Amino acid sequence: MYVAVDLAGVAAFALSGALVAVRKPLDLFGVLVLATATGLGGGFLRDVLVGQIPPAALEDWRYLAVPVVAGLVAFRFHRGLGRIEREIAVFDAAGMGLFCVTGAVLALEFGLPAVSAALMGMVTAIGGGVIRDLLAGRVPVVLREQLYALPALAGAGVAVAAVRLGLDDLAVIACGATVATGWRLLALRRDWHAPLPPGMDGY
Amino acid sequence: MYVAVDLAGVAAFALSGALVAVRKPLDLFGVLVLATATGLGGGFLRDVLVGQIPPAALEDWRYLAVPVVAGLVAFRFHRGLGRIEREIAVFDAAGMGLFCVTGAVLALEFGLPAVSAALMGMVTAIGGGVIRDLLAGRVPVVLREQLYALPALAGAGVAVAAVRLGLDDLAVIACGATVATGWRLLALRRDWHAPLPPGMDGY
Amino acid sequence: MYVAVDLAGVAAFALSGALVAVRKPLDLFGVLVLATATGLGGGFLRDVLVGQIPPAALEDWRYLAVPVVAGLVAFRFHRGLGRIEREIAVFDAAGMGLFCVTGAVLALEFGLPAVSAALMGMVTAIGGGVIRDLLAGRVPVVLREQLYALPALAGAGVAVAAVRLGLDDLAVIACGATVATGWRLLALRRDWHAPLPPGMDGY
Repeated sequence: MYVAVDLAGVAAFALSGALVAVRKPLDLFGVLVLATATGLGGGFLRDVLVGQIPPAALEDWRYLAVPVVAGLVAFRFHRGLGRIEREIAVFDAAGMGLFCVTGAVLALEFGLPAVSAALMGMVTAIGGGVIRDLLAGRVPVVLREQLYALPALAGAGVAVAAVRLGLDDLAVIACGATVATGWRLLALRRDWHAPLPPGMDGY
Repeated sequence: MYVAVDLAGVAAFALSGALVAVRKPLDLFGVLVLATATGLGGGFLRDVLVGQIPPAALEDWRYLAVPVVAGLVAFRFHRGLGRIEREIAVFDAAGMGLFCVTGAVLALEFGLPAVSAALMGMVTAIGGGVIRDLLAGRVPVVLREQLYALPALAGAGVAVAAVRLGLDDLAVIACGATVATGWRLLALRRDWHAPLPPGMDGY
Repeated sequence: MYVAVDLAGVAAFALSGALVAVRKPLDLFGVLVLATATGLGGGFLRDVLVGQIPPAALEDWRYLAVPVVAGLVAFRFHRGLGRIEREIAVFDAAGMGLFCVTGAVLALEFGLPAVSAALMGMVTAIGGGVIRDLLAGRVPVVLREQLYALPALAGAGVAVAAVRLGLDDLAVIACGATVATGWRLLALRRDWHAPLPPGMDGY
């Protein structure tokens, strides 16, 4: 169950990475590399930090196939995907919401306390996008104006609470991902943002 | 004892990261993310490389509370902190001096040879600042003109020597951190720098 | 045997990192830091992901000596190395070819399946250059126009196949490194590149 969600998160992040690469534009292999790094980067970071070594993605060929297929799809059909900038943000939000759940649940399984598990969920959710943006020379999405880290942390916290309450897997995933992705998309659409430092509002 | 020093290093680096974020300016959550990444990044790198997995910071809530509090303080009171650029360098130098000691001592505890332990101390001391500067789009402090890597390596080497000589914890910390932070601050104040490549002096 | 190849890869990558640093120009310690990070970064990434913790480089002083010596040589004799930009690419291609073999072979030894071992070879081969370019503020070489990731993956795949066929170590190294480095250098010389996304050719 969590593997399917994890693969969906990989696909969503890989699409976001591939679209960033298409827009630069990079060539076919640049697109595939950025799709793979974005799709698997957050999970690698999560696995190394909680101690799942080698990372699950290295022992399951589906984790390698998904970002390659996503990269090829984005390479071929990027025009059909419409306004690219918005699509990147939507796929990124979907990947973020799915990964904050899988990161938090895996951390709980490895015996981390609840607060740390929520943090690991946030790190997993943020990691892929940070790697994508560093490689592509963009300001990391998590440091930009609209809310990003807060929805990721909230989704991970909701997932931790749902696990502790004994909800079943589907409910855990639905609650956590809905909170994180929904909040992020609302923040994007309504241009919500957190307060600036006092005295810096004039920028 | 070393946990207290480690937490002080986390606080110093978190303040440096938060002040970089305030100066861009990022919003409240951007400040907290950059403070946390800067404060915990070097220690995560150290723990993963020496084999302390999951990292100590994930199993102790104080490691998560310290950067958040430091980020909130910097966010609210950044104007009272005066000339921000200089403050960043001072907090950064303090974090660097504390982390070069904890990195070297932990590496010795995990059985690494002396030279590697000194290198791990340097990596720990440099890591947080590199992560901060990469995320913020600045040239990493370790590659800039005044001395940085050399004081970090020297402080780590002094700490390794002090442990091998059987000095007590307080002496190890005092010697290593004083050498690293003191040398770094002197290099900043007097604008000491290492030689440039031959033929490149004209830049 | 593989240690010797690994050290040669460290030396080649360290030279490429040192020459990037000389060209900015950074000072002596900046050159040494960038040489060490470039030389050891890919191997650290490989070791952490396959579970060789602490990384081999931390338990063998030669891994620390090689990049320092390479950095000093590049610092002192960079003018004798001629047209620097081309030299960087040649050393980078050599390091890439050697690391894609050692990464793939180590991953096989740690029990990873063939496809994952080839991927790990590619990650090892790409990692050092990505770290170098991120630290130096350059576009990562793997995302630039000429082929890079594909030769690295091909060399790693050839090495995996050679191991599975039971060839001896020297043949494994020769086949893998020749394919990767040779293809990369040909791509550079003849300006081969992969196709751009459809509709983006006009850039």
